[in-house]
Amino acid sequence: MSADSPSEFDIINRYFSGIGAAHGDAVVLSGGDDCALITLGNDQQLALSIDTLVAGRHFPADAEAGDIAQRALAVAISDLAAMGATPIAFTLAITLPSYDRDWLTAFSNGLSSSANHYRIPLIGGDTTAGPLSLTLQVQGTVPRGAALRRSGARVGDGIYVSGFLGDAAAALDMLQGRLSVVDRDSYFHRCFYRPQARLQLGQQLLGRAHAAIDISDGLLADAGHIASASGVGLCLNAGQLPLSPALQGLVENQCITAQQALSYALTGGDDYELCFTAPRRDFAPVAGVAVVEIGQVVAGEGVQCLDSNGSALDFSRRGYQHF
Amino acid sequence: MSADSPSEFDIINRYFSGIGAAHGDAVVLSGGDDCALITLGNDQQLALSIDTLVAGRHFPADAEAGDIAQRALAVAISDLAAMGATPIAFTLAITLPSYDRDWLTAFSNGLSSSANHYRIPLIGGDTTAGPLSLTLQVQGTVPRGAALRRSGARVGDGIYVSGFLGDAAAALDMLQGRLSVVDRDSYFHRCFYRPQARLQLGQQLLGRAHAAIDISDGLLADAGHIASASGVGLCLNAGQLPLSPALQGLVENQCITAQQALSYALTGGDDYELCFTAPRRDFAPVAGVAVVEIGQVVAGEGVQCLDSNGSALDFSRRGYQHF
Repeated sequence: MSADSPSEFDIINRYFSGIGAAHGDAVVLSGGDDCALITLGNDQQLALSIDTLVAGRHFPADAEAGDIAQRALAVAISDLAAMGATPIAFTLAITLPSYDRDWLTAFSNGLSSSANHYRIPLIGGDTTAGPLSLTLQVQGTVPRGAALRRSGARVGDGIYVSGFLGDAAAALDMLQGRLSVVDRDSYFHRCFYRPQARLQLGQQLLGRAHAAIDISDGLLADAGHIASASGVGLCLNAGQLPLSPALQGLVENQCITAQQALSYALTGGDDYELCFTAPRRDFAPVAGVAVVEIGQVVAGEGVQCLDSNGSALDFSRRGYQHF
Repeated sequence: MSADSPSEFDIINRYFSGIGAAHGDAVVLSGGDDCALITLGNDQQLALSIDTLVAGRHFPADAEAGDIAQRALAVAISDLAAMGATPIAFTLAITLPSYDRDWLTAFSNGLSSSANHYRIPLIGGDTTAGPLSLTLQVQGTVPRGAALRRSGARVGDGIYVSGFLGDAAAALDMLQGRLSVVDRDSYFHRCFYRPQARLQLGQQLLGRAHAAIDISDGLLADAGHIASASGVGLCLNAGQLPLSPALQGLVENQCITAQQALSYALTGGDDYELCFTAPRRDFAPVAGVAVVEIGQVVAGEGVQCLDSNGSALDFSRRGYQHF
C-alpha cells in the first residue's frame, strides 16, 4: 500500500480516464461533469444492466486486479449479449479499501484491455473508500422492439447453448481449494476470470431466437427464468450438454466423477454462455464458438434434465443462491 | 435479523418491484430480464450518473433505512438537476450484510416515497451480500445539446446558489457527536437525510445559465470545478452566502462561531443545492426556493472568497476528500 493519498479526482485522472475512448461514437460528454451524455440513433432502444461484484464473494479477495477488471466487464457485457444489444458505454463505481498504486495500475490495464475488446468506452463513475467491490452498469442499443427477452420461448422450440458449460464452476473449486488438479495452460483460470461475453452471437440471434438469457447463475436456474417468463417447460438432455475437453479430461483422469462434471454444467454458474430457444435448426459456429442443441421447449412449467434413459435427474442445488 | 434466507429474486419481488412505476413512460422493460429497456424521444440526449454510498463513510452505519434510501436517491437525482435533465429511470445495486425484513421494508418505503417525489421508476438492479453499500445510477433526458455543463462560465457572469448552504455539514457534526445542540423539528436531520434535488430549477436554467454544478463536495470545491472546466476564476463574497435561519441561530446562541458557520457553508458539502453562473439578473424563487447571487466570474483561475473588507479568506480544507 502506498503512503500518499490522492484525491478521487487524481485517481480518476491517473487510472480511469480514456479507457475504451476510441469506441465512443455515441458519447457526447464523458466524465468531468455531473452526468455523462449519450446520443442514441432514432429507432434504437437503450438496454442497460447493473451488476455488483463483492470481493470474497464474487471473486477471491486476493485475485489479481487485472483479472478482477476483465471478469467484471465481461460479466456486465454478457447481459447486453443476452438481449442482442450492441455496447455503447459503461460506468464504473469502485470501492477501494486503500490507495494502492500497483493494484490500480493493473486494474486499469485489465479494464482497458477488456473495454477495447468489447469496443465500449468508460464514460463515468464514482470512486469511494470502503471494502473492495465493483459496480458496473453497461449501456447498449438494440433496434426498437427487437431485443431478445426471456419471455418468448414457444413449445416446440429447440434449446441451444453456446460454448462449454461447467468450466467456470470447476475453476472456482480449484481457486477455493476444493479441487486440486493441474490447470494446464491456465485454461480453467481463464474460464473463470476471462469469460467471453457472446455479443456477436446475441446480435445474430435478433429476429431468429424466441428467448435468450446468459448463464450466470447456472443452466438449470437460468433456463428456469426462461421457463417461468415464457410460461413453458424446458426439457434438457444431459447427454447433449457441451462439456469442454478439459472438463472431460478431469473425469477421464478420475479427478472428478461424471456426476460432478454434470453438476458443474447444470448448476455451477459463471459460464456466461448464452442459452436461447428458437425454431429447431442447425446453428453454425459464431465467431468460432459452437452452438449446440441441448433440449426442447415443452408444454408445462419448470426445467427438467433427462439422462440417457429418459429419467429425470434430481439436483437439489439449482444454481447460485445469493443469500 | 430474520432467520429465513430468501433468494435474491424473493428480495427483489418483495421489496423492489414497482417502485416509482407510475412514472415510467419511457420504460419498455423493467426488471426480470437481462437488461432494462428504455425508449428515448428524438432530439433527446441521455444523461446518466452513478454514485456509491458506503455505510460508515457516506452515512452513519446506524442510520434509519428509510433515511438512507431517501438520501441516496436525492444525491443521485441532484446530478440530473445540475445538468437540467428530466429523470426517466434509475437502477439500484444494493449490498446487504444480511437479510433483515424490517430494514428492507423501511428502505423500500423510503425509496418508494422518494421515487414518487422525483417521478422516477426503479427499472433494474442487483442485490448482493456484503458490507452495506448502495450504488444508484440515474438516467435522465435533456434536449439535444442543451445540457448545463461546468464548462460554460464566462467572465462577468454572476454566480448564484439555490437554498441555504452549510446545514448538512452542521447536521453531520451533530450526527457524529462533534456538535451538541437541540435539533428543533429535526430540521438539521432532514437537511442531511432528505436533501432536495433542485430538478425544477435545473430545468428552468436550460438556455439561461452558462455553467452549473450541484454542491456535493462543498461550495469551494465545486465552484473550483466550474472554474477549472471553464478556464475562469470565481470570486465569492462571504457576506452573500445564504445561511439558514437555523444555522444563524446556532451562531446567535453561541453554539458555533460565525467562522464555523462560514466554514460549513464553504467547505461542508452535502447541501445538494445548485451553483450556477449566468448573465447578472435577479432570479425569482423556483418551486419556493430562493436563488441568490454570491459572487462574480472573473478572469484568472481558481476560487476565492472575500470577506466584508475585501480580503481573501483562507480555507485549508477545501471540501470533502474521498481518500
